[in-house]
Amino acid sequence: MTIQQISSFAAGEWIAPGEGARNIASAVTGEVIATAGNNGLDVQGMLDYARNVGGPALRKLTFHQRAKMLKALAQHLGQNKQVMYDLSFNTGATQSDHLIDIDGGIGTMFVFASKGRRDMPDGHVYLDGDVEQLSRNGTFLGQHICTPLRGVAVHINAFNFPVWGMLEKLAPTLLAGVPAIVKPATNSCYVTELCVRLMLESGILPTGALQLVSGGLGDMLDHLTMQDVVSFTGSADTALKLRSNPVILENSVRFVAEQDSLNCSVLGVDAEPGTPEFDLFVKEVQREMTTKAGQKCTAIRRIIAPETHVQAVIEALSARLEKTVIGDPKLETTRMGALVSNSQKRDVLEKAAIIGQEAERVFGNPDVFDVDGADGDKGAFLPPMLFHCANPDTAKRVHDTEAFGPVSTIMGYRDTDHAIELANKGQGSLVASVITRDADVARSFALGAGAFHGRLYFNNRDSMKESTGHGSPLPHMVHGGPGRAGGGEEMGGVRGVKHYMQRTATQGSPDLLTAIGSKWVPGATEIKGPAHPFTRRFNDLAIGETLHTEPRTITIDDIQHFADFTGDTFYAHTDEAAAKRNPFFPGRVAHGYLLLSFAAGLFVEPNEGPVLANTGLDGLRFMKPVVAGDSIKVRLTVKSKTKRNDQYGEVRWHVTLTQQDDELVAEYELLTMVAY
Amino acid sequence: MTIQQISSFAAGEWIAPGEGARNIASAVTGEVIATAGNNGLDVQGMLDYARNVGGPALRKLTFHQRAKMLKALAQHLGQNKQVMYDLSFNTGATQSDHLIDIDGGIGTMFVFASKGRRDMPDGHVYLDGDVEQLSRNGTFLGQHICTPLRGVAVHINAFNFPVWGMLEKLAPTLLAGVPAIVKPATNSCYVTELCVRLMLESGILPTGALQLVSGGLGDMLDHLTMQDVVSFTGSADTALKLRSNPVILENSVRFVAEQDSLNCSVLGVDAEPGTPEFDLFVKEVQREMTTKAGQKCTAIRRIIAPETHVQAVIEALSARLEKTVIGDPKLETTRMGALVSNSQKRDVLEKAAIIGQEAERVFGNPDVFDVDGADGDKGAFLPPMLFHCANPDTAKRVHDTEAFGPVSTIMGYRDTDHAIELANKGQGSLVASVITRDADVARSFALGAGAFHGRLYFNNRDSMKESTGHGSPLPHMVHGGPGRAGGGEEMGGVRGVKHYMQRTATQGSPDLLTAIGSKWVPGATEIKGPAHPFTRRFNDLAIGETLHTEPRTITIDDIQHFADFTGDTFYAHTDEAAAKRNPFFPGRVAHGYLLLSFAAGLFVEPNEGPVLANTGLDGLRFMKPVVAGDSIKVRLTVKSKTKRNDQYGEVRWHVTLTQQDDELVAEYELLTMVAY
Repeated sequence: MTIQQISSFAAGEWIAPGEGARNIASAVTGEVIATAGNNGLDVQGMLDYARNVGGPALRKLTFHQRAKMLKALAQHLGQNKQVMYDLSFNTGATQSDHLIDIDGGIGTMFVFASKGRRDMPDGHVYLDGDVEQLSRNGTFLGQHICTPLRGVAVHINAFNFPVWGMLEKLAPTLLAGVPAIVKPATNSCYVTELCVRLMLESGILPTGALQLVSGGLGDMLDHLTMQDVVSFTGSADTALKLRSNPVILENSVRFVAEQDSLNCSVLGVDAEPGTPEFDLFVKEVQREMTTKAGQKCTAIRRIIAPETHVQAVIEALSARLEKTVIGDPKLETTRMGALVSNSQKRDVLEKAAIIGQEAERVFGNPDVFDVDGADGDKGAFLPPMLFHCANPDTAKRVHDTEAFGPVSTIMGYRDTDHAIELANKGQGSLVASVITRDADVARSFALGAGAFHGRLYFNNRDSMKESTGHGSPLPHMVHGGPGRAGGGEEMGGVRGVKHYMQRTATQGSPDLLTAIGSKWVPGATEIKGPAHPFTRRFNDLAIGETLHTEPRTITIDDIQHFADFTGDTFYAHTDEAAAKRNPFFPGRVAHGYLLLSFAAGLFVEPNEGPVLANTGLDGLRFMKPVVAGDSIKVRLTVKSKTKRNDQYGEVRWHVTLTQQDDELVAEYELLTMVAY
Repeated sequence: MTIQQISSFAAGEWIAPGEGARNIASAVTGEVIATAGNNGLDVQGMLDYARNVGGPALRKLTFHQRAKMLKALAQHLGQNKQVMYDLSFNTGATQSDHLIDIDGGIGTMFVFASKGRRDMPDGHVYLDGDVEQLSRNGTFLGQHICTPLRGVAVHINAFNFPVWGMLEKLAPTLLAGVPAIVKPATNSCYVTELCVRLMLESGILPTGALQLVSGGLGDMLDHLTMQDVVSFTGSADTALKLRSNPVILENSVRFVAEQDSLNCSVLGVDAEPGTPEFDLFVKEVQREMTTKAGQKCTAIRRIIAPETHVQAVIEALSARLEKTVIGDPKLETTRMGALVSNSQKRDVLEKAAIIGQEAERVFGNPDVFDVDGADGDKGAFLPPMLFHCANPDTAKRVHDTEAFGPVSTIMGYRDTDHAIELANKGQGSLVASVITRDADVARSFALGAGAFHGRLYFNNRDSMKESTGHGSPLPHMVHGGPGRAGGGEEMGGVRGVKHYMQRTATQGSPDLLTAIGSKWVPGATEIKGPAHPFTRRFNDLAIGETLHTEPRTITIDDIQHFADFTGDTFYAHTDEAAAKRNPFFPGRVAHGYLLLSFAAGLFVEPNEGPVLANTGLDGLRFMKPVVAGDSIKVRLTVKSKTKRNDQYGEVRWHVTLTQQDDELVAEYELLTMVAY
């Protein structure tokens, strides 16, 4: 068997590992399969290349263009999954584990592609929140914007998910417009290298957007500036070492840490043996203990059950664990593969011994277990091990010792408050799950444990068919947790993209804010177009293009007729005396929907034209009642434009209705689809 | 004159400074006026008191109750401004400076009170963003929530704004539901102490919500946990020391730093001498140099002007600076008071000397200047000093040396890109201002300099009457900046409140998410009320209470009549052939507003009752066109309730319109006011 040379990709060149390279063994056979090392990389050259080549190229693209790029990358990787599967068995991962790592990573990229199209503009500036009214007359306003950092994102990833671990960071980074240097953990870097090769060879990425370090980072962190970001996943010890780097501290370099943590799963008081929740709990715990041989930063390390049900959980869980076939991950019958390395196996056994000082092992014997289709003495195999801690209130190590393998400790609780207290003893975790159907239990956990956990996962019979699993971070939701979990946050849709952008408070006149955000701000100059805006095509319409309509007088007959016709005979429109008693109205008033409908009657251009449909309306507020005799007129202004497909795009209009005295009656944003 | 003893307020007791207390001199006379010291405070006792007494008391209140508390505090302080003014003259501040510090601080509290009422719920859980669809059938969903941290906020404040500096941090902290320990800079802590006394004596705050440290913090930071926050304002050196604390690093304690920085103001290429912008620029620069004797973290340290106009700026600015009357801050004629201390004055002179290595002093002589009504040798007086740097590209110290006093350096630029480059040489600032009326210049700065500055302030003739000033952080906008400015963020409305809360991704069934957020989530159980919901009062309506209406069939006459009556004769409703050519429609379709109006006709209860008014509508989306012959029916569900005043509250309804085949036609949220 040839030993694979795992290269770095630096400043546009593949650099093979040189002297001092480290051997990497197969998790299954213990044989050396690859060698990795950075071969004295030019660290400053890599940073310069990212900053001077990759960054400018990415920033030229709009958020939508970058989102499309992510989609294309994800599609390309999806077409090449099999080669990654084949290689990744060597890490000890089973096909089910590949689905989490490889398919999960690709899926994450698809979600970011979709979020980028839906939740971000087809432009270069992301608007964070609404315009802030900073002045009485509106000539001076505020708007928060986000723009890409001018530096590079250094991603330091853990060994357990060589593909997902890279892609979940890469997707938001590239979407933000920032180039990345990826440094995978050496143990499984050969899978990451393959994935990087696939992405680079696709030609989809701009030059300089992605580089790879095989082996160590050298002194790269010492060269970072305030425009760079470090995003780290791994152990608490390594995180502490890196975040204490003087350059990072002195330059306020963003440092996002996601550390393994003492996650827990709680069986709700209502979830007694015999309920679907009890069975669900046992099933989820078993899955979390054995998936990826327990090498998941989100795995359940502490099982918290009502004292009265601890024994029942131990029995049911042991029965399931008993059936977990351990062996060569390539075998279809194997349910749990190997740990990534024998050194990792030794570490898990050491940590399990520490836990054993406070808890009794009630399932699993690392000295006696079957391994299917592989040599248990050469590969890094371990059986699932369950501990029982009888005194969780006085115990300390079960709450702070993470054995990063198929190891978990069960402990009993007296009541929900006690369960929350135990859950919080982990001093900050990535995820706590609660299996309950009791809404009060769920709310108590949210209020009592929310501050200690980055994610709270609830499950029960109502959601279990569609639930995504305690241990699965989702691109829609933030991943990370306080304290022991690192204090960082990743993903969570646009939230994750913002970690690679700077939020800036901009203040100025409506015209300048309109120019900065490519979105018309009330008070900005109105543009008079050459014709009715409904006769103008998407590409011709200018931001700020405005129509002022003629007025229309509302009569009492209009109001009565609208009530009769629509059936909306609400007393404020039909009963003068009752309307007068209402604190809002001077007497009978026009229906809000009448005003909207008449407004449309005033501003639409009836003939066939580029405006295709009214697809919705946002933020409608009625400011002042309209009574018979009042007249209303409409101002319609192009607020923003977003391309949607090859035929048409969305035009968002800012609409105001004013009375004869120019007082504001109603305000809203109207959505239309307009042909190019 | 008696020397005032500045006490700490620790665990419910006022503790006078004991041995080792430090003398504080008047900035104006140099005489000792006060003494401060922590007298060996029981640091752990203070933390415990905040965590065990203050935290629980604050968390019992809803966001709205805490907002009302802030409003009451602000009102109380507003009634007691004069005593704070009187005392604060000793810090060297003029009455204009008091308006920024004391009135500004109170105003900040009012804005947070208002934001809390408007932008946060009358409950205990803040919902961050929308529900995330994590499953096809919607039985498993995601929702981000924010809940208060369970620890304490330690606020370490700068000397320059003893009131605002405290209140701008305290307002979001208390609104979040977190107790605070305030440690003001010793030089001006006597003003802070007075403000704290006023707040405590008002009886508005729950016990334990606020404590004060006079003198040093002792080893308080060594006792912090992952549930605590440090929010620091001050020098970069001190920030670095504090953020390097091993306990802070190891426990991932949140550390928010706001450091003085090398802020700049840029004169746009368009703002030539003779334009209103040129005059505005000179005026703003002069104000920023002299307000608070230049001791503002946002003050303009670098003046960046087109090379061709540098001389004109120097002349115009010098003429204005010449008129700045320096003296006893109590005198009404005084425009600039003293620096806070003679040691601060020495520091400014040292830094000015460093700047002088790269730039020439063109205005102001620290050895020769007039002081009105005070002894210039005893008080900490300095004149404004303007330097000119001829080689800003090669210079280094003018971009990294902050003289925290009335000192600024002017430098010339060639074109807008060069101006951006110079602005960014500060390596991260709190604010950069650009005086321009050119939208392209503004957009170039947003894109090119946004990533380096926490705030970009634009001003010109259009906004200058209402603009709030380069140097004024506003509670609506984030304050803080990357890199040299500390990398932190404060204020910015709810953004600032979130720094004291944990964001948690919750996942679960619609019923559980509804219970957690007190907001009905689609898919959650519908509650059948005892009567039509429009006959039910605010307090009786349950979240989830639902009405299903009878169907109504839409006829072609309805569509034609609606078109004729409203004037909305858009071709999709009136012209079968044209509508068919439209990619969205099968032929003539009903107006969206017709559907809304008929829906109201289906769900309203006409008789006088507790529902008072329809005040608006959010997120309306039309999903499927409705043609003649289709029938629609409505589902109306109570989504959330928010009290507004003594008479009524807002009920937000989730509304869906479905067709005869149960397919979704439209969806929106309806806002009504309902009597209690």
